[in-house]
Amino acid sequence: MRLTPRDTRFFDLLTGAAGNLVTGAGLLAELISVPQAERPRVAQLMHDTEHLGDDATQEIMMQLNTSFITPFDRQDIQALAAGIDDVLDDMDEAADLAVLYRIEDFPDGVATLVELLARAAALTAEAMPGLRKVADLRAYWEEINELEDQADGVYRRLLAVLFNGEGEDGRNVRDPLTVMKTKEVVDRLESAADSFEHVADVIQTIAVKES
Amino acid sequence: MRLTPRDTRFFDLLTGAAGNLVTGAGLLAELISVPQAERPRVAQLMHDTEHLGDDATQEIMMQLNTSFITPFDRQDIQALAAGIDDVLDDMDEAADLAVLYRIEDFPDGVATLVELLARAAALTAEAMPGLRKVADLRAYWEEINELEDQADGVYRRLLAVLFNGEGEDGRNVRDPLTVMKTKEVVDRLESAADSFEHVADVIQTIAVKES
Amino acid sequence: MRLTPRDTRFFDLLTGAAGNLVTGAGLLAELISVPQAERPRVAQLMHDTEHLGDDATQEIMMQLNTSFITPFDRQDIQALAAGIDDVLDDMDEAADLAVLYRIEDFPDGVATLVELLARAAALTAEAMPGLRKVADLRAYWEEINELEDQADGVYRRLLAVLFNGEGEDGRNVRDPLTVMKTKEVVDRLESAADSFEHVADVIQTIAVKES
Repeated sequence: MRLTPRDTRFFDLLTGAAGNLVTGAGLLAELISVPQAERPRVAQLMHDTEHLGDDATQEIMMQLNTSFITPFDRQDIQALAAGIDDVLDDMDEAADLAVLYRIEDFPDGVATLVELLARAAALTAEAMPGLRKVADLRAYWEEINELEDQADGVYRRLLAVLFNGEGEDGRNVRDPLTVMKTKEVVDRLESAADSFEHVADVIQTIAVKES
Repeated sequence: MRLTPRDTRFFDLLTGAAGNLVTGAGLLAELISVPQAERPRVAQLMHDTEHLGDDATQEIMMQLNTSFITPFDRQDIQALAAGIDDVLDDMDEAADLAVLYRIEDFPDGVATLVELLARAAALTAEAMPGLRKVADLRAYWEEINELEDQADGVYRRLLAVLFNGEGEDGRNVRDPLTVMKTKEVVDRLESAADSFEHVADVIQTIAVKES
Repeated sequence: MRLTPRDTRFFDLLTGAAGNLVTGAGLLAELISVPQAERPRVAQLMHDTEHLGDDATQEIMMQLNTSFITPFDRQDIQALAAGIDDVLDDMDEAADLAVLYRIEDFPDGVATLVELLARAAALTAEAMPGLRKVADLRAYWEEINELEDQADGVYRRLLAVLFNGEGEDGRNVRDPLTVMKTKEVVDRLESAADSFEHVADVIQTIAVKES
């Protein structure tokens, strides 16, 4: 049984959508390394990427509306598109809040979190063409789960340092409002890691159904 | 093929449930405009509305249990009822926390958020009878997505002002605990906007399946 | 029609997974009652339990992959396993953060929240073998919904006391960062109550489908 062109269109669209996640993760890495004055420019590029993501999602939905046959259950394709969209929303929100809150310094763990997201983005983008043979993607979803676990550990230790401070007298030396703002940005990064895992979960679900 | 009375019962029940959202949005508008001393009374009315919502959800579940044929997949009807319930829970929680935390002043953006919720409630209530011809509801789900996008922008700018303060020396003049409490209330309003979008997403899913 | 051994395997696996929730709730009760110095040991036991939970979830997924026939829709079994996993994740995160943040005193309502979670864990563990006759589980999901409602009320009052403080002059006497950290832990307990409700919702969904 051969796939028709219409079927393979979904793989192309999902691959394109996941490509935006690689761009987004790269922009996050840039955002946290450039001087504060340049961050609004990076956040704007992120926002443009997020709009491309919205367009990609809409195109997948349109394709679903006009396709008689789909390679997987319609709901699963929709859940994949929505999951990829969620990751990009989280990245965009993190960049936007970092600028709006005028965050000056990012805590150490943030760079590690962003590296984990970049790895997850690369894995996800590579997995999409592999949807043609979904059972072979076990290594992908297992590594995404592992990355999410690592991100969660980094996140919790980062919060502990942020909240507990490092003053010599053991009392927190940080301004509470700065702590709150920083936490808001970091929360979005952790949420992006979760959203990557949701995408992987949907793919595992598809594999279970096909098995 | 004609719809039986039993089928149309679901549209009536969902229309009734969505009507509570219009009431809830109206009570939110009242809550933020009356003096603080009157807010417990408004929050109590909201709580009564939330109970009506619970009853409506239960009635839909009972109807599902006793119906042999349903106009859509059972899970989608259940998801619609749950989504409407989530919106009302968010509204009730916002009102309850505003009273419990004794919030004195609401930041400017809150009135705009509440207006966007009122618009979303009206649209959702109008959409329910239209479920009979779900493909015609495209304008509804597109506008709800647009409203959620606007609410998200208002929410982020509101947080930036709340966290960054407006003191002449550029330092935040606000009490951190007051900032935290206010953010808790505003978060529930933003969550209500998200929940409205979830309802619209379910309806879009139904339309995709029927297409 | 008799169930084959392969079918009943799912009930056994889910019963085993839910048993970890009873262990987890017991460890939470221990965590909040022992002196601070002993908490890392209890949090480590919780972490071990969470790993057992991960193994249980993986075993259910493997069983799904190798089973030709399943007693319910595959997605519902997967959702049950994921829901049980979420509860344990919340419990583990609460214990971990309590230690990482070096929380000294837990507010009064925390003990009540933990008791409600223990009750929900016992009910959930008892319900799993009953999945063989899912329509009879109505009392279970109704009580879980009632418990979640109670937990929500306790949670909100607890936050009000935490945020509003109890100083004689009516101003909050608490350190804002301590308030934030305590809220983070309490949020995870409230989230565990929500996750219990999600498990009950899936079971109600299964019952609706079978009715």
